[in-house]
Amino acid sequence: MEKYSTLFVELGDRSYPIFIGDGLMQLSKLLASHIHGQQVLVVTNETVAPLYLEALLDNLSAYSVETVILPDGEMYKNIEELNTIFNVLLTKKYNRTATLVALGGGVVGDMTGFAAACYQRGVNFLQIPTTLLAQVDSSVGGKTAVNHRLGKNMIGAFYQPQCVIVDTSLLDTLPDRQFKAGLAEVVKYGLISDPDFFDWMEKNITKLLERDPAALCFAIEKSCANKAKIVARDERENDVRATLNLGHTFGHAIETFYSYQGWLHGEAVAVGMVMAAELSKHMGWIQKTDVSRIKELLVLCGLPISPPKEMSSQVFLELMSVDKKVLDGTLRFVLLQSIGKAIVTSDIKQDILLKVM
Amino acid sequence: MEKYSTLFVELGDRSYPIFIGDGLMQLSKLLASHIHGQQVLVVTNETVAPLYLEALLDNLSAYSVETVILPDGEMYKNIEELNTIFNVLLTKKYNRTATLVALGGGVVGDMTGFAAACYQRGVNFLQIPTTLLAQVDSSVGGKTAVNHRLGKNMIGAFYQPQCVIVDTSLLDTLPDRQFKAGLAEVVKYGLISDPDFFDWMEKNITKLLERDPAALCFAIEKSCANKAKIVARDERENDVRATLNLGHTFGHAIETFYSYQGWLHGEAVAVGMVMAAELSKHMGWIQKTDVSRIKELLVLCGLPISPPKEMSSQVFLELMSVDKKVLDGTLRFVLLQSIGKAIVTSDIKQDILLKVM
Repeated sequence: MEKYSTLFVELGDRSYPIFIGDGLMQLSKLLASHIHGQQVLVVTNETVAPLYLEALLDNLSAYSVETVILPDGEMYKNIEELNTIFNVLLTKKYNRTATLVALGGGVVGDMTGFAAACYQRGVNFLQIPTTLLAQVDSSVGGKTAVNHRLGKNMIGAFYQPQCVIVDTSLLDTLPDRQFKAGLAEVVKYGLISDPDFFDWMEKNITKLLERDPAALCFAIEKSCANKAKIVARDERENDVRATLNLGHTFGHAIETFYSYQGWLHGEAVAVGMVMAAELSKHMGWIQKTDVSRIKELLVLCGLPISPPKEMSSQVFLELMSVDKKVLDGTLRFVLLQSIGKAIVTSDIKQDILLKVM
Repeated sequence: MEKYSTLFVELGDRSYPIFIGDGLMQLSKLLASHIHGQQVLVVTNETVAPLYLEALLDNLSAYSVETVILPDGEMYKNIEELNTIFNVLLTKKYNRTATLVALGGGVVGDMTGFAAACYQRGVNFLQIPTTLLAQVDSSVGGKTAVNHRLGKNMIGAFYQPQCVIVDTSLLDTLPDRQFKAGLAEVVKYGLISDPDFFDWMEKNITKLLERDPAALCFAIEKSCANKAKIVARDERENDVRATLNLGHTFGHAIETFYSYQGWLHGEAVAVGMVMAAELSKHMGWIQKTDVSRIKELLVLCGLPISPPKEMSSQVFLELMSVDKKVLDGTLRFVLLQSIGKAIVTSDIKQDILLKVM
């Protein structure tokens, strides 16, 4: 349990470590070294709380601790629920030395991080992600936000945590469908910047699906390392960080169409990545065989690869036009020049786009 | 009209200029050089809009412009009204190259700045303050926020504008009571860091009250220069910036007690500064004659100097305990070691405190 990997997100005075290992949440010293004041607020949700909250609170007995248990689901990632966090902080008179701890998946992490960014104009927070998706993606990089009914992640901040504690044992209870949705983001890192890792995934997908501890740890480390490197180069998404949105413009449109219900984020991203791959093929950048490899790996992951039939190309266009990736009215796409190399472009002919959708 | 002063707030890659002069809002070149995209959202309020909105819009004819007109008053500085700004931004499909322009007093500036900080995790904004208080204080330094029913400015961000355009001609229509409230913050700069400026105010208060253009410009420049210097040293209020809160801990308690109605911010701060001065005298730091000078200048400004009789010391203590200046349960006060030198301390004996309140 004392053995774990440490990666760093290099961001000057906002740099922080990512710890990855089995049973890390039990290391109270690790927690203590990243909590500076006496007041701690743990934010979690109704699914995670019965599983892990007590264990975490046991390790925080040296602090004055309150807990917020949010309802579970993307549809609760809104300003109203954010306000419930502020209500507790203010009612309990939390001050600027307080530390917020996010115990949960992407929604809990995004909301806790944004609450920390805004409360008294910024207090410390740390992330203990409990889903594969959060462990490999959303907990790293400081993107925090809530949704607005007119668009996903539209209200938020770039705000970095004190540290991220990736305890792989927390995945033991993760439902299979959620686990598979998390794999979509793992595949993403291979596609955008790490062809060797993509090859490795093709060879080791069975082990990953069996949640083999060594394979899982390797995949999480590789994912976090790829993300940390990109975030360090471009924290505020002025250029290269946008490649991390591969599949997300299409994916967000699907999630918005279904009001964040029915489709998991990773599932929508899987479909979005296939659409981006198809578009890349039509642009003459990647081969038909590359598209097949991508589809096959995603199918092996147990992920969908076709957009929902109810969504016309017109619906896609309309929903994508409010996406954050739109700049001065031009839709921007993350496409693949090869497996392992993504670029951002807005130079897409309308007819090709409509064909793909 | 082409003649104006320029000060800089030195914050590395977040540095920005403050332009101060008569009729500056008419300089469309000045506006244009700080707007980068095509989409502009002007946020103002129902009091300012009939006076200056049309003139501003005339100078923004090269852009795609929308307007949000907020209700006027501190009681509307909340998350609900903030959401009306987001609604317009999203309905009109504003993207990350958008620029928000705050045309108004402190409330409009704080809300517009916070909206800019959060929209798509941060877009550009610029400040055109229309009250004396906003011109000398709230528009400079990047503090943005909304109030929560349990405390003032509790939800916000440190977020710097592209520039601040201080057009002194906008004060022509400022009601006398608001003008005087603004003078409280001007007096504050003398008290915390500029004894010569305090002396100057004592000698020139009549001119200031007559709104003599030269005197007014000098006072605004001195105020902004003092603030810019302090903010440059400590953007996120880890130490010296806290001195800018002289009188504000007591003042916020008064504003909260009256639910931000009845008392203007500057009036509450004036009383708070007298309370801080009295406390400083009881600590043996400043002389009785200093307290008298402070009171006399504030009275000449037409400002109140006594706390409301309805507020007991117990009420003050309770309301101050949720103030942002509280750290780990300890109330911190900004006190005066002399006229022109403020310090932050938490070493105040309860009996002295109760006596002053």
